[in-house]
Amino acid sequence: MGVIIPLSDGKGESRASIEPLVRLTAEPMSRVNELILDRAGSDVGMIPEVARHLIDSGGKRLRPMLTLAAAGMCGYSGGGHVKLAASVEFMHTATLLHDDVVDESDMRRGKLAARLVWGNQASVLVGDFLLGQAFRMMVEVGSLGALEILSNAAAVIAEGEVMQLAAAKNTATTEDEYLAVIGAKTAALFSAAAEVGPVIAERDRGERAAFRSYGTNLGLAFQLVDDALDYGGSAAKLGKKVGDDFREGKVTLPVVLAYRRGSDDDRAFWKRVIVDGRIEDGDLEEAVAMMGRHNAIADTIERARHFGAVARDALAPFPDSEYRAALLEAVDFCISRAH
Amino acid sequence: MGVIIPLSDGKGESRASIEPLVRLTAEPMSRVNELILDRAGSDVGMIPEVARHLIDSGGKRLRPMLTLAAAGMCGYSGGGHVKLAASVEFMHTATLLHDDVVDESDMRRGKLAARLVWGNQASVLVGDFLLGQAFRMMVEVGSLGALEILSNAAAVIAEGEVMQLAAAKNTATTEDEYLAVIGAKTAALFSAAAEVGPVIAERDRGERAAFRSYGTNLGLAFQLVDDALDYGGSAAKLGKKVGDDFREGKVTLPVVLAYRRGSDDDRAFWKRVIVDGRIEDGDLEEAVAMMGRHNAIADTIERARHFGAVARDALAPFPDSEYRAALLEAVDFCISRAH
Repeated sequence: MGVIIPLSDGKGESRASIEPLVRLTAEPMSRVNELILDRAGSDVGMIPEVARHLIDSGGKRLRPMLTLAAAGMCGYSGGGHVKLAASVEFMHTATLLHDDVVDESDMRRGKLAARLVWGNQASVLVGDFLLGQAFRMMVEVGSLGALEILSNAAAVIAEGEVMQLAAAKNTATTEDEYLAVIGAKTAALFSAAAEVGPVIAERDRGERAAFRSYGTNLGLAFQLVDDALDYGGSAAKLGKKVGDDFREGKVTLPVVLAYRRGSDDDRAFWKRVIVDGRIEDGDLEEAVAMMGRHNAIADTIERARHFGAVARDALAPFPDSEYRAALLEAVDFCISRAH
Repeated sequence: MGVIIPLSDGKGESRASIEPLVRLTAEPMSRVNELILDRAGSDVGMIPEVARHLIDSGGKRLRPMLTLAAAGMCGYSGGGHVKLAASVEFMHTATLLHDDVVDESDMRRGKLAARLVWGNQASVLVGDFLLGQAFRMMVEVGSLGALEILSNAAAVIAEGEVMQLAAAKNTATTEDEYLAVIGAKTAALFSAAAEVGPVIAERDRGERAAFRSYGTNLGLAFQLVDDALDYGGSAAKLGKKVGDDFREGKVTLPVVLAYRRGSDDDRAFWKRVIVDGRIEDGDLEEAVAMMGRHNAIADTIERARHFGAVARDALAPFPDSEYRAALLEAVDFCISRAH
C-alpha cells in the first residue's frame, strides 16, 4: 500500500509515505469499511448499487484516516471514532455524487461517473441518502460537539460549491478568492474530520484548535497539489489523468497565476478556452507550456508547501508519538504527490 | 388566513379550517419565519436568492406548525421547538429543490422552478446548503432524540425518492407499493415533525408514538388528497393547477386505481401517456373521465379519509385541549381540500 516517491525537489518530503498512517489506523479502518458497506445498504436496490460504484472504486479514504488517527493520538478509547470516520467518508461521497452532477463530469476515480450510469437523478438522491445516513451515524455516537462540527462543515461545503459555481469561468479570480473556495469546499471537511478526534476524546479547546488547523491546512495543501497534478505536477508531463480541470474550464490556482502573470496574448488564450470553452488541438500542451513560463505550477506547489508547513506546526506542541509522526509524514506525502 | 370550505360530501370535515392551528402557533411561527430568513442567508449571494425564491412563494408551512403545536400540546416551555420547526421547513425546502431537478419540473408553487431560473446546479447545491443549515439548527437545540428522528427522516425521504424513481412509469404499481413510496417521501417528514414535539418536551414513549402515528397518517392523507386534486379533486373539474402529475407521467393513486380497474383499452391509454409519454390534446380530459368511470378519484379521497381517521384516533387518548382540537381539525381540513 505504501507509495514511496524517491525523487523530489522538495524539502524533506522526498521519501514521505502514507504507509505509517495506513498501518496505525488499519484496525479501526477495517471496521469503518465494514460500516460503510453496511450503511450504504438499502432495500431500495438502486441505492447500494450507486453507492458501491463509488465506494468500491477505492478512494484513498484519507479523510476517515484523519479522524481515526486524531482520535488515537488523543487517547480516545471508545468506538465512536469508527462511526464518525464512516460519516466523514459518506459526506465526502455524497459531495462527489452531487459535484459530478453540478460539473457535468463524465469520469470519477477512473470509472464512468455514476450520473452517466444511473442518471443525474439517482446521483442527487443517493447523495441525499448518504448524507442522511452520515447524520444518523453521528447521532448514534451521541457527541453534540462532533455533530456541531460536522453539520457546520456540511453547510460550509455546500456554500463553497455555490461560491465556485458563481465564480466559474472567471479568469480574473484572485488567489484569495480561490483560496476561499477551496477552504470551504475541500479544507472544511479535512478540518472537521481531524477536529472530531479530540472532541470525542474530550480534549481541551487548544487541542481541538490544533487539529482543526492541521486539517484545514492539510486540506488546502492537498487541493493545491491536486490542482497542480491536473497539469502534470512539477514534471509538467502530460499523462493519462491530466487535463480534466482544463477540459471542464475550471479556474484553479495554476490558471489564476498563469492568467495574472501572463501577457495580453496569454489572457486572450485563457479567455478563449475557459470563458468561451473553445478548446482546440494542442491547447492543453500550450496551457502547460504557458504555466511553465510563468512558474504557475511550481508556485502552486510552493503554496501547497506553505500550507503544509502550517499544518505541521499546528501539531508541533504535542509530545512525540507514532500518531503524530504519521500525521506529519502524511502532510509531506500529500505534497510529494506533486513530483 | 382561514380557508373555510362550505360544501362537502365528507363526514364532519365540511367546515373544517386550518385557522385554529394557525392562530395557536402564530407567536412561535413568527419566530420560525424570522429564523428561516436569517439562516437562509449567506455571504454567497446566490444562496439567499435561490432560497428566498422558494421561501417567499409562501408554502403553507404545515410541517413546522405541526412541530410547534405538538410541542405546545405537550406543555413544552423552552425555545427549541422554534429551531426544530425551522429545521423541518428547511428539510422540506431542500427536498423540493432536489425534487424539481429529479423530476425536471418547470413550475413550483405557481412560480418558475428555481432550476429554470438559476440552473440545476444551484438547485442541488442550495438544497445541500439548506440541509446543512437544518442540521446545524437541530444541533443547537441539543436534543439527541430530536436529532435521531430528523436524521432518520432525511435518509428515509431520500430512500423514498429513489424508490419512486425506480418505480417511475410503472403503471402496474400496486396500491401498497405506492403507499410505501409516499410513506417514505411525504409521511416520514410529517411524522418526524410531529414526533419531535413530545421528544423535546420529554414525554414518554407512548405519547411519542401517538404523535408519530398522527404525523404519518396525516402525511399519507395529505399526499393522497394532493394526488386527487391534481385531477381536479372530487369535483373532477379541470382548473388552473390541474394536470401537473399527468403531464409529468407520475403514477399516483388515482392512476393506480384507474389502471387496475380499467379495460384493456383503458390500460393501453395509460401506457401510451405514462410509459411512452405520448400525450395528445384532450388526453387529460379523457384521463379524468376514465377515473370518474372507475371512481378512482373518489376512492383516493376515501383512502385519505381512512388515514385521516387513524390520525385522529392517534390523538384520541389525550385530554381535550385547544391544541388537540386544532390538530384534529387540521386533519379534516387537509381532507376537505379535496372538495
